[in-house]
Amino acid sequence: MKPKFQKVTYVAILFGAMLIASGCTKQEKIINAANYGLKQGADAVPALRKALEVCVEENATKLIIPKGKYDCYPDMATEKYVRVSNNDNGMKRIVFPLEGLKNFEIDGQGARFIMYSQILPFNIEGCENITIRNLSIDWNKPFYFQGTVIATHESTNSFDLKVFEECDYEIVANELIFLEKPGKAIRTWKQWAMPVKKDFGWEQNIDWNIWYDSKIKAPAYKGNECLLRSFNEKLNIRYHAKEIEPGVVRFFNAAPKLPQKGWVLIIKGKKDLQRVSPAIHIFDDKNVHIENVDVHHAGGMGLIAERTENISLVDFNVVLPSGSDRMVSTTADATHFVNCKGMIGIDSCMFENMLDDASNFHGIYTYIIKLVDDYTIGVNRMHGQQTGFQFAEAGDSVRLSETKDMKSYAVLKVASVRSFNEEYMEITLDEKVSDILRPSSVAENVSWQPDVQVKNCTVRRNRARSLLISTQGEVLIENNTFKTCSGQSLQFAGDATFWYESSPVRDVIIRNNHFKDFGLGGGNSPVIAFIPELKFDGKPTHYYHQNVIFNNNTCEVFGRRLVIARSVKNFVFKGNTILPSKTYPLAPLNQDAFSFRDCKDVTIEDNHYQWPEKTSVTVDNFSKDIKVEENIGIVK
Amino acid sequence: MKPKFQKVTYVAILFGAMLIASGCTKQEKIINAANYGLKQGADAVPALRKALEVCVEENATKLIIPKGKYDCYPDMATEKYVRVSNNDNGMKRIVFPLEGLKNFEIDGQGARFIMYSQILPFNIEGCENITIRNLSIDWNKPFYFQGTVIATHESTNSFDLKVFEECDYEIVANELIFLEKPGKAIRTWKQWAMPVKKDFGWEQNIDWNIWYDSKIKAPAYKGNECLLRSFNEKLNIRYHAKEIEPGVVRFFNAAPKLPQKGWVLIIKGKKDLQRVSPAIHIFDDKNVHIENVDVHHAGGMGLIAERTENISLVDFNVVLPSGSDRMVSTTADATHFVNCKGMIGIDSCMFENMLDDASNFHGIYTYIIKLVDDYTIGVNRMHGQQTGFQFAEAGDSVRLSETKDMKSYAVLKVASVRSFNEEYMEITLDEKVSDILRPSSVAENVSWQPDVQVKNCTVRRNRARSLLISTQGEVLIENNTFKTCSGQSLQFAGDATFWYESSPVRDVIIRNNHFKDFGLGGGNSPVIAFIPELKFDGKPTHYYHQNVIFNNNTCEVFGRRLVIARSVKNFVFKGNTILPSKTYPLAPLNQDAFSFRDCKDVTIEDNHYQWPEKTSVTVDNFSKDIKVEENIGIVK
Repeated sequence: MKPKFQKVTYVAILFGAMLIASGCTKQEKIINAANYGLKQGADAVPALRKALEVCVEENATKLIIPKGKYDCYPDMATEKYVRVSNNDNGMKRIVFPLEGLKNFEIDGQGARFIMYSQILPFNIEGCENITIRNLSIDWNKPFYFQGTVIATHESTNSFDLKVFEECDYEIVANELIFLEKPGKAIRTWKQWAMPVKKDFGWEQNIDWNIWYDSKIKAPAYKGNECLLRSFNEKLNIRYHAKEIEPGVVRFFNAAPKLPQKGWVLIIKGKKDLQRVSPAIHIFDDKNVHIENVDVHHAGGMGLIAERTENISLVDFNVVLPSGSDRMVSTTADATHFVNCKGMIGIDSCMFENMLDDASNFHGIYTYIIKLVDDYTIGVNRMHGQQTGFQFAEAGDSVRLSETKDMKSYAVLKVASVRSFNEEYMEITLDEKVSDILRPSSVAENVSWQPDVQVKNCTVRRNRARSLLISTQGEVLIENNTFKTCSGQSLQFAGDATFWYESSPVRDVIIRNNHFKDFGLGGGNSPVIAFIPELKFDGKPTHYYHQNVIFNNNTCEVFGRRLVIARSVKNFVFKGNTILPSKTYPLAPLNQDAFSFRDCKDVTIEDNHYQWPEKTSVTVDNFSKDIKVEENIGIVK
Repeated sequence: MKPKFQKVTYVAILFGAMLIASGCTKQEKIINAANYGLKQGADAVPALRKALEVCVEENATKLIIPKGKYDCYPDMATEKYVRVSNNDNGMKRIVFPLEGLKNFEIDGQGARFIMYSQILPFNIEGCENITIRNLSIDWNKPFYFQGTVIATHESTNSFDLKVFEECDYEIVANELIFLEKPGKAIRTWKQWAMPVKKDFGWEQNIDWNIWYDSKIKAPAYKGNECLLRSFNEKLNIRYHAKEIEPGVVRFFNAAPKLPQKGWVLIIKGKKDLQRVSPAIHIFDDKNVHIENVDVHHAGGMGLIAERTENISLVDFNVVLPSGSDRMVSTTADATHFVNCKGMIGIDSCMFENMLDDASNFHGIYTYIIKLVDDYTIGVNRMHGQQTGFQFAEAGDSVRLSETKDMKSYAVLKVASVRSFNEEYMEITLDEKVSDILRPSSVAENVSWQPDVQVKNCTVRRNRARSLLISTQGEVLIENNTFKTCSGQSLQFAGDATFWYESSPVRDVIIRNNHFKDFGLGGGNSPVIAFIPELKFDGKPTHYYHQNVIFNNNTCEVFGRRLVIARSVKNFVFKGNTILPSKTYPLAPLNQDAFSFRDCKDVTIEDNHYQWPEKTSVTVDNFSKDIKVEENIGIVK
């Protein structure tokens, strides 16, 4: 592993330099959207489109939007079929369709964009040197449902919920449907009639939900014990809902255990698609810089980037709107990066109250379903939300691995690609693959593996995890605060079973961070989890993740488990301070802080473990060279 | 009205001549698909694509497919986002993607194509002089659910259904789900998990259904009294289903009245989209000829044509597969034509057992939502299944009407069109529209109004109606047999309220046809219904439909009502024979055979009404000049 301490240049500075460099070749030309009909109190979309079209015609370098509140409706928006990895593909109404632009900046000057209904605020595609700054994105009402428990009734296995003022609902067939257009719930059991387009709107049922604690606006401690389901398997009946008075709904037999009074129910729903409206979609771009942008909500991810080289986020925040009683920001990850390359830099950002992770950096594994000819493999994109993903192009290199142990056995250069549909594509390689190919193999793209820096950020109060890291580039996680999520904090995975997310890490430094209170949902969630899904038992054939340093961090947690690791080589856990949580009850003394399976060359040294009881290290028979020394509070 | 009796040339001959004429310019070049890997027992799709690609490369005139049974899977099929009017838009896997071809024929030589899952057999787009002949299209299993009542239980308000062998189902949350992939029903109430792509498949609930009479394979007489609904509004509970033994399911509280033993339940479902897989989609073509083609099933329409000039169907049949116990062919209309022009000729075709009409010829009304500038109107496509329809192009003429009475007030030429999304488009006109435009107006395209000839065809045993005619071209309906559908036989509508289907007719002859037994679902359905939806009361401002001759037909029906008409001028009902049904009980004597509202210049003469009781004519106060003379059995 190379030393990385020299690498002090900030990503923002790097990008600034790139933009200045490219800007030098071109006169600055500024367009003000106010000159093209943009005004407050009307649908801003046609005027913004006009202004953007003028920018293209006149080869402008910057679009300025005067500070103000702008309402963006889908009605007249430009539409396009957009594939959005890890969100839902489909026809999208787009507010800012940025395509094929070079050296272009949007300066919102503090503009607040309020979205209505299913809409995609930013689609940035095929662009180079793009900056978005000084604006915020919100929706008039959230895609989720929110309500506060005001009473519970043991005798009828029910509780009463006061519905949040921004949420519309109807009781349909004795169940709660929340929906975009009040009074428009579809009675599916009615014969024949199909809705006219103007009546369309999303609607959702009660499935897929989480409890929040209103006092701290974080996932309720052990809230997962009370999750609602529309069908109660234990009782073999559907739940039912009844409106007690306008805005108050009683839920019967909906949860295995009644929630606490004051808890807030957040429902995402499983009736219609629920990741159709991410806030910012970045695909096939080079050098995207986003600064001083707040995403308050999205029906999907805050920012999703695919196959893009160099992205820097500075003061990019996924945060609750100030003064709002909403409990949740985006309904999926704050940020997500699939098969990017170059540098992804995230600096001075706040990610809070998402219904999924803060950041996930990964590639995808496609499954090889056939050998088309000696040089050509036929592969399927496997996960439903990877369909249509542009997996590889001529010139890329793909690495083949067997699914049984996820061990790679070849790297081959791509000569050409033909994608027939969103699932199946054929990849012709530069050299003969028929002799090499092994049964049940997956392919990952090793040409698109970014370096990652996450610095000076705060992640808190979200469902799921803080960061998921699956890139073989250089990774530096430094000076951040990660706290109060429902699951573990840092995850290093990789699987060819369900998510089909690649790749193994080779170079990760995590230092000077503050970790606090994970597993609020109810688990005993670790600070770091290495959980590649390898389908083998017995002596390791290889080590999936390698070269990870966890150094000089403070962990202040209530869970006993700090590290769970499978198939990791060269892991250093050094100089860290581990404190018991002051906020939540400590987990029972049922687990060692460290657990290793199929690992090699692990060093745990110079740590200060300050819990009342000492802890230890669980090591399986196949792990080798586990050094535990010079620690306080950790015995071997 | 012009006389039409000279027009004896058959459409097929016309088209044959056109094709021969165009073929003269080009050497015949024939490709045989068998030379490109096509074989029985394997997925035929890659070989068919290869053969088609060779046809394009070598500028072939004909693709031959050797007689045989070919299985077509979506897995590796070419995919494209296809907008299909009156069906469901979306990404479609296509078996025969015919695009931009000229002077090309596919001769199946008796080939049987068996489709699997959601797939589009033919997409014909931007082509000219195309012939498809000598093949059949079916699916391995239907998109609908079928089962036979083997017992009823009054005491528990339940009945037992023996499930048809081709249908897979699961009992999920006490309800029946039928689905494409056995054992894969999605338990939506489960938390988090989303399916991996390879597990995808459609699934449906019990809503949207019809009863068939297995003895005659037609809609059960008065079957509509027993339609199932997943939510029983009367009892305020959901129905529930229970598997009694494998393949036998008991339904509790599902219908307002128990069905008869032996009746067959057909369910289309309302859970997933159910018009995703029509058999043949024709868009933006010129001269399409289809001959000796059988469509046995489709998840949508048998043939849907949009904005195409000249279509001839000869011996094109939508029929049950021979020897099958299926009750239903296509799950929607057999054929459907939206804003076509030139001649649509349908000769010697059989359309049976569809879940919707045999043929519908119409245009669409778009709703004018704003005046963009003096020359430009902003319009919305209104019905959900018209989204994305290519409504107009430069050079077309659009006609404006007020929705209050559907009276047209201007015809304007289109200078340019810009479609922003599937709903909204802006149309710039050749002349100033700002002075003309009236509030609440719709626009229809009068440049795309086909002539229609339907001859020597049989329509029977379907849900809904025989023909829906809404074109201002010349229409001739001659020598056909129309019988045993659930609703009325011929419909002339037009509305700007829900379906938004145009246009008024101006020249229709219906002669020498045999009409038999309509309204099997339970209504007292007429042979002809003129039912434009006009939102005015009082003295007519105009007459929506005009110039219709119904001459020398035989009507042998059980319903009392023969003609219901609103806003028709110059309707001649002459020389027809009307007999009581010999098959079904005659309707009670509660209606006159004729009913006119807001009509003018109606002639009922020389008809022979042979029912036991004489009948009469109901005329409202606003109808004028209704002549009833020289009839037997009809009194004024």
